[in-house]
Amino acid sequence: MKKTYLILLAIFISCVTIAQKQDSLHIRKVFDIALTEGHAYENLRSLCKDVGARLSGSPEADKAVQWAKELLESYEFDTVWLMPVKVPHWVRGTIEEAGVNGKAMNIKTLGGSVSSNGKIEAEIIEVQDFKELKDLGEEKVKGKIVFFNRPMQKALINTGEAYGGCVNQRWAGASQASLYGAVGVFVRSMSDHKDKHAHTGSMGYDEGVKKIPSVALSIEDADMLSALLQSNPNAKGYLNVNSETLPDKVSYNVIAEIRGNVEADKIITFGGHLDSWDVGEGAHDDGAGVVHSIEALRIIKATGYQPRYTLRCVLFMNEENGNNGGKTYAAVAKEKGEVHVAALESDAGGFVPRGFTIDGNNEQLKQMQAWEYLLEPYNLHIFKKGWGGVDIGPLKEQLVPLIGLRPDGQRYFDHHHSDTDVFENVHKRELELGAASFAAMIFLVDKYGLGHTLEIQPIVD
Amino acid sequence: MKKTYLILLAIFISCVTIAQKQDSLHIRKVFDIALTEGHAYENLRSLCKDVGARLSGSPEADKAVQWAKELLESYEFDTVWLMPVKVPHWVRGTIEEAGVNGKAMNIKTLGGSVSSNGKIEAEIIEVQDFKELKDLGEEKVKGKIVFFNRPMQKALINTGEAYGGCVNQRWAGASQASLYGAVGVFVRSMSDHKDKHAHTGSMGYDEGVKKIPSVALSIEDADMLSALLQSNPNAKGYLNVNSETLPDKVSYNVIAEIRGNVEADKIITFGGHLDSWDVGEGAHDDGAGVVHSIEALRIIKATGYQPRYTLRCVLFMNEENGNNGGKTYAAVAKEKGEVHVAALESDAGGFVPRGFTIDGNNEQLKQMQAWEYLLEPYNLHIFKKGWGGVDIGPLKEQLVPLIGLRPDGQRYFDHHHSDTDVFENVHKRELELGAASFAAMIFLVDKYGLGHTLEIQPIVD
Repeated sequence: MKKTYLILLAIFISCVTIAQKQDSLHIRKVFDIALTEGHAYENLRSLCKDVGARLSGSPEADKAVQWAKELLESYEFDTVWLMPVKVPHWVRGTIEEAGVNGKAMNIKTLGGSVSSNGKIEAEIIEVQDFKELKDLGEEKVKGKIVFFNRPMQKALINTGEAYGGCVNQRWAGASQASLYGAVGVFVRSMSDHKDKHAHTGSMGYDEGVKKIPSVALSIEDADMLSALLQSNPNAKGYLNVNSETLPDKVSYNVIAEIRGNVEADKIITFGGHLDSWDVGEGAHDDGAGVVHSIEALRIIKATGYQPRYTLRCVLFMNEENGNNGGKTYAAVAKEKGEVHVAALESDAGGFVPRGFTIDGNNEQLKQMQAWEYLLEPYNLHIFKKGWGGVDIGPLKEQLVPLIGLRPDGQRYFDHHHSDTDVFENVHKRELELGAASFAAMIFLVDKYGLGHTLEIQPIVD
Repeated sequence: MKKTYLILLAIFISCVTIAQKQDSLHIRKVFDIALTEGHAYENLRSLCKDVGARLSGSPEADKAVQWAKELLESYEFDTVWLMPVKVPHWVRGTIEEAGVNGKAMNIKTLGGSVSSNGKIEAEIIEVQDFKELKDLGEEKVKGKIVFFNRPMQKALINTGEAYGGCVNQRWAGASQASLYGAVGVFVRSMSDHKDKHAHTGSMGYDEGVKKIPSVALSIEDADMLSALLQSNPNAKGYLNVNSETLPDKVSYNVIAEIRGNVEADKIITFGGHLDSWDVGEGAHDDGAGVVHSIEALRIIKATGYQPRYTLRCVLFMNEENGNNGGKTYAAVAKEKGEVHVAALESDAGGFVPRGFTIDGNNEQLKQMQAWEYLLEPYNLHIFKKGWGGVDIGPLKEQLVPLIGLRPDGQRYFDHHHSDTDVFENVHKRELELGAASFAAMIFLVDKYGLGHTLEIQPIVD
């Protein structure tokens, strides 16, 4: 009896060892393909240079949809299709000027901002946050341009956290300032990199407030303005932008699939967003995520792996100013009764990958952590709870575990939403390692599932 | 009795918890200073722009010694002094030309190479390694320029390993080719980055061989040449360099100390190398290590921490072509009977830090790994055996545990020894995080020692 037990144990251990060895070899193959015959870098070059910046509603966004569809079709996946998405259509104006005491500053109108309807001239009042604004009140604010100047906290190691700590100025600054009679808003760019490039991004207006224009200043100009206001509190600012919001348009999520071999009706979705801001080339945000996702599906196919579940690469439209692609995707999935094993996103740049975060339960976390030994040889060390991604976020309601690829974030906000988010600022190997890491994680999720909702039962590849 | 035991246990656990909490707060302080009031970036700017490239023996190396001494003195450490080091004095020529079929290529003469004594013209024979060279033999090689073109292996995750896999072509290619009667050597640059910049580096001649000149080709030119030789095996190469080796000179290791509070006669040495190649600005190699080391000592002082051991920052001279600074340092330490607790080095660039490797015994490794929980919040994950550093290497004979800072290596060889190793290619926060990580490790080594040769006994800071 004891002998039988020992034999069974030995067989079990052998099976596990063989499976681990197979996994290890398979992941090595994934990285080999990405690093020695990768397409990610050339695809990113093409997206950045042949298409360029691609804000929802723009002709370039239409071109990006076509670009992605044709590229995915060229790889001969099982299916490629377009999912219609209604998107907003905001357009940066032909006029974009602001300054102080007659001296021009480098600015970008924030996405969603109204036109200034001609040149506004007014005194400028600097505040660090909404509390300070409120304390100043209408008496001090009325008729002025409010300058939100709270910087990203340098001491935070996680730059995303530093961004989160000041982005409310960009999103809600205009609505808040408008409450007290301000006529316009200057916002310090959401960046920790001192240069001349202003960083755009989305903003919105609360219901019922008077809409006033809002623009981002470059970090150099924000520092200059703050210093100037110290010595000259009555300095006169000006602001002239003629951005506008046109009627909504129809655009598309671009989707490609490899059908599952065992449970084709269950889906692993992974993607990035195809739209970008209308400045730079959307290289890190989120050209990198787009080519990571395409490359992951291409590599998985190239390895000859037969997926258990259906692997679905989704290039979402409109993450930047509405997330209508993500919302539509989740709504369609719900309507069709689709079952998602997991959703993964790459939307944090094309930098060297550090690991993954999971927005899921403890069991799912534990399952992801069980793969650490397979990924540590590729310098992937972060396996913890955290952010999935904006596009896949709406799937959370359907209890889908969400996984985010975590590239190193130190340089991300140097370029984010600015003229410098271009192909030249993406490093080939860093991008390729991201694609391989993404592919490796998709492979593991497919092979083993994610925690208790699914069997943890390796299938032979 | 049992009660007494439990009370003692509770006291012990409390003490350990308090010490851990103190360590955690202290390390947070180190990172705060580096990121919010750091000097590393400005110091690196000054070293790169006010001093520039600084090959051993050059006037710029003299200037660097002066620069470092004055900077260290300005921080008012306990002692600053210069340790004389005899260094070689190789000088790149005023003529540096090579090409094929009359078309110029981008080259750098390798450090140590002899002059070509006028223009050499000869057919070119491409080989991948010394075995292939030997198989061709004198018959095929004599009178020709040998072109060593084995690339860095892209599939290797560790770029240092990829470098190690082909650097023998650079170091020994000329001696090997000379054995079979070659008249000159072209070497593919030790880089994986396709651009027009050739990468220099050290080479040497075996005793007795006829010395022939050796130059590095840019990756673009190496690929071009290889393709050309496919279609035109008789293509004619040319080579004209007039580099020379002058008599040895005296230079210096620049050293600063904070004296230990408990055991001042035991030393923790940490540093980088002050010399660089004579191209670019030696920003990553090893300006970063220089400013990491200075900043680490400055930060440790700024935190008010009283070190147990003497903390010694050593800016070594002549790592690039001789390592005479490292050898002299170890010889002097031996002669004086100095006891080193550990030696640490930063010589892998100013990129985002990933952790540390230790060249020591298992107990020392275990001790270093015990601190991982304190450093993981700063995204430091690598704590394993490995390389210490070239400069500290000669201390190994004295059984000193050697620790190397491990920044991310993906971009390192893009710039290494080339015109692009300039200040602009170093990222402020990445550099600062490196300095803080280095300081944190020095603090921990000082507070707890490293394994069995020393007591593991926290002292209150």
